[in-house]
Amino acid sequence: MKTATSAASGWPFSTVLVANRGEIAVRVLHTVQKLGLKGAVVFHAADRNAPAVRMADHAIEITGATPVAAYLDSAQILAAAKSCGAGAIHPGYGFLSENTGFARAVESAGLIFIGPKPEQIELMGDKVRARNFVEKGGFPVAPSAIEDDDPKTFVERSRNVGTPLLIKPSAGGGGKGMRIVRDLSVLEAEIERARSEGQRYFGDGRLYCERYIENPRHIEVQVLGDSHGNVVHVFERECSVQRRFQKIVEETPSPALTPQLRAQICETAAGIARSAGYRGAGTVEFIFGQGGEFYFLEMNTRLQVEHPVTEEITGKDLVLEQLRIAAGEPLGYAQGDVSSQGHAIEFRIYAEDPGRGYTPTTGPILALRAPQGDGIRWDSGVVQGGEVTAAFDPMIAKLIVRGTDRNDAIARAEKALAETVLLGCKTNTAFLRRLVVHPAFVAGDVHTGFLDANPQIAADPPMADETLHALLAAASLSTRPMRDAADCVPDLHAAIGEWRN
Amino acid sequence: MKTATSAASGWPFSTVLVANRGEIAVRVLHTVQKLGLKGAVVFHAADRNAPAVRMADHAIEITGATPVAAYLDSAQILAAAKSCGAGAIHPGYGFLSENTGFARAVESAGLIFIGPKPEQIELMGDKVRARNFVEKGGFPVAPSAIEDDDPKTFVERSRNVGTPLLIKPSAGGGGKGMRIVRDLSVLEAEIERARSEGQRYFGDGRLYCERYIENPRHIEVQVLGDSHGNVVHVFERECSVQRRFQKIVEETPSPALTPQLRAQICETAAGIARSAGYRGAGTVEFIFGQGGEFYFLEMNTRLQVEHPVTEEITGKDLVLEQLRIAAGEPLGYAQGDVSSQGHAIEFRIYAEDPGRGYTPTTGPILALRAPQGDGIRWDSGVVQGGEVTAAFDPMIAKLIVRGTDRNDAIARAEKALAETVLLGCKTNTAFLRRLVVHPAFVAGDVHTGFLDANPQIAADPPMADETLHALLAAASLSTRPMRDAADCVPDLHAAIGEWRN
Repeated sequence: MKTATSAASGWPFSTVLVANRGEIAVRVLHTVQKLGLKGAVVFHAADRNAPAVRMADHAIEITGATPVAAYLDSAQILAAAKSCGAGAIHPGYGFLSENTGFARAVESAGLIFIGPKPEQIELMGDKVRARNFVEKGGFPVAPSAIEDDDPKTFVERSRNVGTPLLIKPSAGGGGKGMRIVRDLSVLEAEIERARSEGQRYFGDGRLYCERYIENPRHIEVQVLGDSHGNVVHVFERECSVQRRFQKIVEETPSPALTPQLRAQICETAAGIARSAGYRGAGTVEFIFGQGGEFYFLEMNTRLQVEHPVTEEITGKDLVLEQLRIAAGEPLGYAQGDVSSQGHAIEFRIYAEDPGRGYTPTTGPILALRAPQGDGIRWDSGVVQGGEVTAAFDPMIAKLIVRGTDRNDAIARAEKALAETVLLGCKTNTAFLRRLVVHPAFVAGDVHTGFLDANPQIAADPPMADETLHALLAAASLSTRPMRDAADCVPDLHAAIGEWRN
Repeated sequence: MKTATSAASGWPFSTVLVANRGEIAVRVLHTVQKLGLKGAVVFHAADRNAPAVRMADHAIEITGATPVAAYLDSAQILAAAKSCGAGAIHPGYGFLSENTGFARAVESAGLIFIGPKPEQIELMGDKVRARNFVEKGGFPVAPSAIEDDDPKTFVERSRNVGTPLLIKPSAGGGGKGMRIVRDLSVLEAEIERARSEGQRYFGDGRLYCERYIENPRHIEVQVLGDSHGNVVHVFERECSVQRRFQKIVEETPSPALTPQLRAQICETAAGIARSAGYRGAGTVEFIFGQGGEFYFLEMNTRLQVEHPVTEEITGKDLVLEQLRIAAGEPLGYAQGDVSSQGHAIEFRIYAEDPGRGYTPTTGPILALRAPQGDGIRWDSGVVQGGEVTAAFDPMIAKLIVRGTDRNDAIARAEKALAETVLLGCKTNTAFLRRLVVHPAFVAGDVHTGFLDANPQIAADPPMADETLHALLAAASLSTRPMRDAADCVPDLHAAIGEWRN
């Protein structure tokens, strides 16, 4: 690929291998190639016709017991990097992006890992160590008590956590054995109940106790650190709209923050990254209470799915920043040089059926019309003629809208979602259209349990009789297009069958 | 159309009619509809399947001796507005957008014209009156002498214009009868020559004389004025890359301006608009000399084709600003609140053959793949399955790229142009790819005569033998796809014919 500038010559690598797939592989290749560098990608046979494979200067097939296993196979990925002369590896998100062993293996092979130092991944990957590190630095963590620290004082220390508090089995997960305590008079009884549940579910009665945040928001801050000790934040993102603990909608600025709170939370994140001597792009996640209190949750040591909203309002190219940092360049700007303009919202387009518990769907992409024009960005890993399989995460594209303010962005989103056509495989776009006009969303009044508390948003509204009749009439004329359309319409198959009989 | 906000209720019109077509009709409808207003559009039968017609809440067919005549027919457009209950008309650009009579007719019909006051259109539409107005306001106009003002002193006044100077027939156009004078000793002889040419070409020997700017740049400034006397500029655009006096590439910021010059030229434009009590969105165009001198050229009293680059770096929605102003709202912000971030470039995608004197092309749009992703905006009035006819201007879409700086935007543009696929009708995308890597363009070292001086950029490079052989081999397998591809490849039809024989 020719390039307008001779920038390529200044880089310590001439080829970058993307160890990922889907939209993020395309996204990373865009920046790599625009710099005049060669972009390589590994791919499993299931992705043979994916856009990233067609874009890449080199595409190297990898194999595995399952497609996902291929993308988790460090050895094959390192061999692929060698085979195409890649001097650096970008891990994207997911897969090996936060795998300390992989980062070390890349460096041992004499290649550049486009991410933080392995020890930083390791530190932040261990939730307990990360939390202790942050707390020792004087940054806010939710008050908590760990039984293991000193079993004799656990009850007393739990009392000091304050109410409401949450008791969790140390070995737990999935909400099992968790008890919320709002009145300290029942604390000891609830601790015993949680202990016996922990014993029963996990064979381990040890407990952990932390302040319970009611209807919390998820607010995170993008940070960038170079290898010369410079760290800046690039403002926050609010990601409170979640389903099954996964983000669906992300935006910036957060509608929950006052200018003072914004400055506080962003500076806290930069401070945490600075205290870790953090190198690369990272995200410090916070739990944010309705009263304005916020506590460190975890730090993601990679590019995030929702990075585009930050790019849209700051004008930064975060992949470019990652590459510059990996090349040893200083950031070259100070905190005061980072500015923000307007409002951006990202919608994750999932191949799933929100009305049926968000279960993943599969199917051929018979028609795909992406929205376009003013205020629209479409980051996608699929094309018309492709197929959505069950092999990977169901996120197939991201719609990012930008507006002069939040209302403007919401209005643009509503139109863009209406313009989006994807036939052959049910997606969540109709659900997103309902979500984006929901009064609570419009008011910015959401929390991480919002969708669970409002299941009606996920449910497909009943189809109007006229629509059903029109579809049935169409079905009488043609079988094949009707079957495709029917894939998008719940219960239509059955209705057509009845009508035919 | 439902909307996220109830903004619609605050507007003095509930339906806006767009009296235009193509990409700008789509662009205006996007903003109208996102505000919760109804969007209507007029269309000639030739545009029956155009995207704007499908998007609009109301689409009203208009007729004419030619398709263009339909879009110039005020009476039909006003009737269309009445028929759909439109309270305001947006004229887009071209067609009736700078027609004083139309603006007056709209207001007489009791509707809101989304544009300046008719007398402002009239003032700026008359080049001589506009120039005098600007000069009297103390703003820079190129030194000049008009023979009609005082025929007896014309030679003397011409001498005072300074060299190099240009003599033009007052009644002229198209370069006929124009003489450049670099040495005042030949001034009188050249005046007589110009006079006799003017007499011969236009039957009118009166002359006009002005300072000649060598290799000038075209720099323009976006301004916004409300009906309360507030005026701001929204920075400049550089539009020096032109073919046959038409812009092809526009960008902002201009690579020619220092911060001081930028402030000067932008403030001059705002001053001119302010002195005219200007209402609406407008553009003050300047001719900019290589020495940094600039002179008023003309003012366009409408939205311009190249408005998106301004939107991309300022985060403003200029159509929204037009609607707000038309509704009588104050701007609501001051000059200091208008900020700029990064760099944006627009490329006009023309259905034309740059290698053959930029002659317009026509044909079906058999395949269309627009570029997408980070930094990309695609404003288009055509879709796959549509047809490019000779009925209208050959501009069919606009690619707008945004980057952190100019080099970044150029590199992103090169990739995006490479990703753009439009088969069935020859376009200028391959030419734009050659242009965007040309060293002079990369250096920002262009002027309005740049493409005339570098005709090799427009010429298609000879096709590599391997490519030709591959295409011929493909042709042997199938006739129909090959004919389509052949439409995009000069002389291939003939080559296929020969090869078959």
